[in-house]
Amino acid sequence: VINQGTVNIKTSSYTDCNAVLKGLQPVFQEQGMTETIHNWEDHGYLATYINKNGSFSNLRIYPHGLVLVDLQSYSDDMNGRDEIDHLLNKIEERMKELFHSSFKRIKRLPAIMRGEAIDRYWPTADGRLVEYDIDEVVYDEDSSYQNIKILHSKQFGNILILSGDVNLAESDLAYTQAIMGSGKEDFTGKEVLILGGGDGGILYEIVKLKPKMVTMLTSNIDQMVIDGCRKFMRKTCGDVLDNLKGECYQVLIEDCIPVLKRYAKEGRMFDYVINDLTAVPISTSPEEDSTWEFLRLILDLSMKVLKHDGKYFTQGNCVNLTEALTLYEEQLGRLYCPVEFSKETVCVPSYMELWVFYTIWKTRTE
Amino acid sequence: VINQGTVNIKTSSYTDCNAVLKGLQPVFQEQGMTETIHNWEDHGYLATYINKNGSFSNLRIYPHGLVLVDLQSYSDDMNGRDEIDHLLNKIEERMKELFHSSFKRIKRLPAIMRGEAIDRYWPTADGRLVEYDIDEVVYDEDSSYQNIKILHSKQFGNILILSGDVNLAESDLAYTQAIMGSGKEDFTGKEVLILGGGDGGILYEIVKLKPKMVTMLTSNIDQMVIDGCRKFMRKTCGDVLDNLKGECYQVLIEDCIPVLKRYAKEGRMFDYVINDLTAVPISTSPEEDSTWEFLRLILDLSMKVLKHDGKYFTQGNCVNLTEALTLYEEQLGRLYCPVEFSKETVCVPSYMELWVFYTIWKTRTE
Repeated sequence: VINQGTVNIKTSSYTDCNAVLKGLQPVFQEQGMTETIHNWEDHGYLATYINKNGSFSNLRIYPHGLVLVDLQSYSDDMNGRDEIDHLLNKIEERMKELFHSSFKRIKRLPAIMRGEAIDRYWPTADGRLVEYDIDEVVYDEDSSYQNIKILHSKQFGNILILSGDVNLAESDLAYTQAIMGSGKEDFTGKEVLILGGGDGGILYEIVKLKPKMVTMLTSNIDQMVIDGCRKFMRKTCGDVLDNLKGECYQVLIEDCIPVLKRYAKEGRMFDYVINDLTAVPISTSPEEDSTWEFLRLILDLSMKVLKHDGKYFTQGNCVNLTEALTLYEEQLGRLYCPVEFSKETVCVPSYMELWVFYTIWKTRTE
Repeated sequence: VINQGTVNIKTSSYTDCNAVLKGLQPVFQEQGMTETIHNWEDHGYLATYINKNGSFSNLRIYPHGLVLVDLQSYSDDMNGRDEIDHLLNKIEERMKELFHSSFKRIKRLPAIMRGEAIDRYWPTADGRLVEYDIDEVVYDEDSSYQNIKILHSKQFGNILILSGDVNLAESDLAYTQAIMGSGKEDFTGKEVLILGGGDGGILYEIVKLKPKMVTMLTSNIDQMVIDGCRKFMRKTCGDVLDNLKGECYQVLIEDCIPVLKRYAKEGRMFDYVINDLTAVPISTSPEEDSTWEFLRLILDLSMKVLKHDGKYFTQGNCVNLTEALTLYEEQLGRLYCPVEFSKETVCVPSYMELWVFYTIWKTRTE
């Protein structure tokens, strides 16, 4: 286990870098660490301290009044954490002694675990660093399309992570409820089409509500997702993935585009279409053009199989990605038929960010 | 702005440290960085690279097949991020070229901002590192009791942070609803006592429900909290903190213990007591003994002023702190009268962890 401890110390703006260095040197020397110093003249100091046990520390002193310390500690047991706490405590104490008056702020971050078998860091869609309470790798497989992980979190239960993106945890009924219209719809006796949804969450919740028939179209990209979720996300999908057919549902492992085209041709219509394929693309670079086209094609075909009073539900993205959401909304003005939409911001527990969901319907002409 | 970029690269178990070092050296040399190498013999290498512009990088090669790179970059504009992305991209590319077959995993974390005026890192109660989307310091004052910050988050709105603990954000109606019994109670015409609650959230929500009288006891520890929230948390507290007295409420700035004692003596009784003073203490060390005693005293006095069919609501702590929660539940068995309790786990958006709330009532003897 490699633990990395960090502390940031703000001193007054005109700190004497040399005085900080001289003041902190004894702390490292007490640990028997060997020092190497670099002096930039106009950018302060970097002192590197090497410990025989394989640990090392950086002391970076910036002349504008900032002292940053990192300690990277390697040990086979949990002693690394203790080593970090011990050294950083000493440094904080010493800095307080030396600079009590010109002292502004100390901030120590929780130690970062690096290169561990169990990875706890899964950044949010808006790129923030967040640590999860992961304690077990439950499933970890590569399909030809993506990496599929199911990791156990103490508080969120099992979490499905596809190619590094947190998809859904067992705690996330809020996601499934939001993409089903937040409890405002009556699915009894209705025809429902689900696009994607390989984790089985939507299917499981809708089947409880006695629909006439739910058809779920999930491509073979999702075959291994289904396999993993059937085994390890049972709180989310119950038993609906055990068989691909039930009294009021069927799961078709087929690409949705040709099936949607066939349905449109046949005049097969649905009361609800729920698109759980993917979040709104973030990038607007040229190589994403095809993604937006694909998204519009799905929308157009979905509108064709949607009854005139039907509803289409889908996820947007993180509420902070306003540009991506605006672009998505622009696409809605470019469909073959006029549509209206509403959106809702929902807290999905394992996401650690607020998520936007859309309801879309065909404009009714009197 | 100091940005620190990190990448973790797992190679096969028997990687030649020297080959990794030789392979990556050109990447740093291209940047004109000056190298210093330490060789542990049995613990691998540390290579430190110094850039004239004040940046530096550590390349730590562990013989068990792990390569860790840190780059600390200083610049007055946002170029630091670009410098980090550029160098870490190069390193990833080079590693893929060199070790394509014996290559296991690359993990790059979002860059950490260090020593900034706007601090984005506010660890969870269970000690995890999480980054918030903070973009503005709205209020930052020290009272004689604590530091009071109100920071603006793009998605959560203003967040109240007391001595480093995230207390409540404008997005967190879920907290207030949970500590009011999750919508299952009828407050119409009722006598309610709030302990603490200086942010005004509970008071604002209850007053809407037409109670007979709400009394809020908040000590002068909270005076500056009230001042800050009145100005900057108006989505949470509305106008209830503008005056300390309204048609159906009063705010008393007094320590709750003597007031509770007086109420108990006078026989003044309440339908609901809502304790929003503090979370359950985490530590069980001797110096926390007094905290537990204080907590028990409050509970005992609250039960004395609670009607026989009344309810007491309070927050517990993060669901992962099972020891602290168990200790709290043990305290409930040590009150002057027998009580029963239920608990509920709630997702409070800005907490980034699930939170436990308690409902406590006096055991009814027939």
